[in-house]
Amino acid sequence: MTVATESPQLERLKAILAEVADLSHAQQILEWDARVSMPRDGAEARADVAATVTRLAHAHFVSDEVGKLLDDLDAAGQDPGSVEGALVRITRREWERASRIPSALAGEMAQASGVAVAAWDEAKAASNFKSFSPHLERQLELKHRYIACFPETDEPYDVLLDEYEEGFTTAQVEEIFGRLKGELVKLVERHGGNAVEEIAGPYPVERQQEAGRLVLDAFGYDANFWRLDETPHPFAAKPGFGDIRLTTHTDERDLTSLFSTMHEFGHGVYEFDIDPSFARTPLGRGTSSAIHESQSRTWENLVGRSQGFWHWFYPRLQRLFPEPLGSVDEETFVRSVSAVRPGLIRGDADEVTYGLHIILRFELERELLAGTAAVSDLPEIWNQRMKESLGVDVPDDAHGVLQDMHWAGGLFGYFPTYQLGNVVSVQIWDRARKQLGDLEDQFSRGEFSQLREWLSEQIYRHGSRYQPAELLRRVTGSEIDPEPYLKYLRTKFA
Amino acid sequence: MTVATESPQLERLKAILAEVADLSHAQQILEWDARVSMPRDGAEARADVAATVTRLAHAHFVSDEVGKLLDDLDAAGQDPGSVEGALVRITRREWERASRIPSALAGEMAQASGVAVAAWDEAKAASNFKSFSPHLERQLELKHRYIACFPETDEPYDVLLDEYEEGFTTAQVEEIFGRLKGELVKLVERHGGNAVEEIAGPYPVERQQEAGRLVLDAFGYDANFWRLDETPHPFAAKPGFGDIRLTTHTDERDLTSLFSTMHEFGHGVYEFDIDPSFARTPLGRGTSSAIHESQSRTWENLVGRSQGFWHWFYPRLQRLFPEPLGSVDEETFVRSVSAVRPGLIRGDADEVTYGLHIILRFELERELLAGTAAVSDLPEIWNQRMKESLGVDVPDDAHGVLQDMHWAGGLFGYFPTYQLGNVVSVQIWDRARKQLGDLEDQFSRGEFSQLREWLSEQIYRHGSRYQPAELLRRVTGSEIDPEPYLKYLRTKFA
Repeated sequence: MTVATESPQLERLKAILAEVADLSHAQQILEWDARVSMPRDGAEARADVAATVTRLAHAHFVSDEVGKLLDDLDAAGQDPGSVEGALVRITRREWERASRIPSALAGEMAQASGVAVAAWDEAKAASNFKSFSPHLERQLELKHRYIACFPETDEPYDVLLDEYEEGFTTAQVEEIFGRLKGELVKLVERHGGNAVEEIAGPYPVERQQEAGRLVLDAFGYDANFWRLDETPHPFAAKPGFGDIRLTTHTDERDLTSLFSTMHEFGHGVYEFDIDPSFARTPLGRGTSSAIHESQSRTWENLVGRSQGFWHWFYPRLQRLFPEPLGSVDEETFVRSVSAVRPGLIRGDADEVTYGLHIILRFELERELLAGTAAVSDLPEIWNQRMKESLGVDVPDDAHGVLQDMHWAGGLFGYFPTYQLGNVVSVQIWDRARKQLGDLEDQFSRGEFSQLREWLSEQIYRHGSRYQPAELLRRVTGSEIDPEPYLKYLRTKFA
Repeated sequence: MTVATESPQLERLKAILAEVADLSHAQQILEWDARVSMPRDGAEARADVAATVTRLAHAHFVSDEVGKLLDDLDAAGQDPGSVEGALVRITRREWERASRIPSALAGEMAQASGVAVAAWDEAKAASNFKSFSPHLERQLELKHRYIACFPETDEPYDVLLDEYEEGFTTAQVEEIFGRLKGELVKLVERHGGNAVEEIAGPYPVERQQEAGRLVLDAFGYDANFWRLDETPHPFAAKPGFGDIRLTTHTDERDLTSLFSTMHEFGHGVYEFDIDPSFARTPLGRGTSSAIHESQSRTWENLVGRSQGFWHWFYPRLQRLFPEPLGSVDEETFVRSVSAVRPGLIRGDADEVTYGLHIILRFELERELLAGTAAVSDLPEIWNQRMKESLGVDVPDDAHGVLQDMHWAGGLFGYFPTYQLGNVVSVQIWDRARKQLGDLEDQFSRGEFSQLREWLSEQIYRHGSRYQPAELLRRVTGSEIDPEPYLKYLRTKFA
């Protein structure tokens, strides 16, 4: 809504930003469709389309006019605490980053990602790293060209990380991960050995989908606004206000899809609950990847692996799966889905080993970018490190280096935010429990609305109004701190 | 592919056209998604996205640079018979049409259609014309503004018709429809009374979908390139070379979905078989709506309602529906699916009454545009004319004026091309049979490839290289002529 007192410059800026947001929503539909609906051989043409939309959106945004409007608005003096001040601030940040790179490069990156993700799909299905490696080489080459557009930083990786996590440096990640790694390894040593066995399936796919829907309904999913589909690699997208899309991956051998669904719900609800007046502006999305992941991990783990949640949901799940679960009691089941169980797949990992999967990827990304690891050696390095950190033998690349889509999509710098999200999630969680009291009791009755409302009020509705560090300070009163997270793990797995 | 001898102007023009084609493919995905996947409440944001993409695509295309390149290429003297000559010709036609209208209006039209189609969805479900009428008013207002951008023509409707059918005038349609109407009414009088009864279902939805897939497989559907979905209103889209999407609507009460599927296959195969070197140029799509509809009607009726086809397919259908069809012999069945049966719904109509549905819409569109019919009176007029021309009583607007999506989508001027397509389809069909001999024998063995190859060679592969009238002359040696179509109907229903 344009308020009558808005300056003509702000009005004009918002009009341009609305178009840029529309194009970004178009890109999201193109990408969602490519993952969910597109016939296999549409990939090449689709990459062209994505490249063109990205290039034009980029050119539209980095125009001199936007720069001039930002200068005028800054000169007029925006209240940095106001919504308008936040809008100008975040727009300037994005404009300055985007202006450094040529529109042609933005288009090339979109094109390469479209082609590489399709190639990854096939490579993973065939467990054939060799067919994928040229695409990974190409992505690295593009990342180098991208990084070269920015002023020199302590480490090239800083440029990529800052895209997802404003103001965060590689050195900070290193420090936090360094602190975590030793502790996680200790926890794995202590609890990974006496692993509780998985409760063997099969869990028929349709029944799992029904279970997922039951949970989503209780969390607050509404089919007028949301949808849920199957993809090999789960993700969430918001191709427009009022249009939230989650995907999950259901495998009848285990119940992982349920946790994926809850994870993606966390992303979806963050986006869904953003103040509608922020629509079609850069304020209208989550403030950073780590804050986003903190919310997906909250709903997946802090809610979805809690005693209270299962006290409510386990009888329902038993009714859906009388065969494998009828004779398994609640306590045994909860212990099983929470157990520390070193495994091959990040997406299936428990709360303790998950961090080690991320740390591996963070290390490898930096080595690939620095050229100290070669693409051709990647499977071997991967397998060796998995053996070292988790003690597991990788049987093939599909269960190893090819498991994640991120590198195909060019998302170097994203992985660390998953683990930062874990850290942040517990800081926020502690605060929520201080304010709301013990939530488990509500969960055990299938009630999740008080938590959701609190999170909306504290985090979701603000979109990108506050920088991630500022938001965290506002909610928790402190900086990012791995201690509460470690304490949570130590207590839970004591 | 850029040939080394291409002029720099042609190369530059093609680069721009490739981007415009990409944006048009993006629009198609946005629209396909809105029809197939989008949650209901995503419609408003989606309309904004569609408007922005349309507006930018329009502005990109109508640039002075494109005009200058076309002038340069014309001055250099293109061989009008060459592919390059055709490309320049069709680009100029589209550029001159597009240049007449402001980009803002193009955007407004896309926005209005997005909102109106969503409103139509709900209005049709509730059979509530009143809730839809403001959107129809808005579409008409936009059409008037659109028409006002063009030089005055004999009749405003000419401007709209020319968009779908190059070089065709309202007067020509009137003449052809005038000729048809009397004959069709006579045929209905003669055969509509002693109507063969429909073979009552239910025909379970999943079985019908299986039947559709069997037919598509025999016609040459390949899941690596194609997909098939359910929508309330069937349509076909090509959001990129190698990406063909059909939809159908399956209702367990009858077998209409099968004919919809074959109809949309005709659209799909035309687009699929276009010379790949035409990709991302205006040559890379069917040459006109009537030619397109001639092909959808060919596969739906000339193939799909033929004796040969059913000789092959009926035993398969019987196996899928032992219940209603087990005791019905082939001849009875074929007579039933071909029967002249005056009804309410255009999409379900037989080959004879179909034309009368179209003529009604053509008349109403002209009256709405001329202001001689008011939107508020439309349901009453509709119902009265249906009674007059087909003798049926319309029970509600969902089965009357709200049945088609076209007006919601702003597609005034499109309807006549369905019936022109019927006319043309038989002219081409006669030619095919002259060259290939009796095809029924092949059909009765489930073989359709010779027909498809001939149609590809004659029509599909050329995309928009030839204007519709020229294409028709090349294939059949004559102008558009309703006589073969009438003869076909008279013979079939004798």
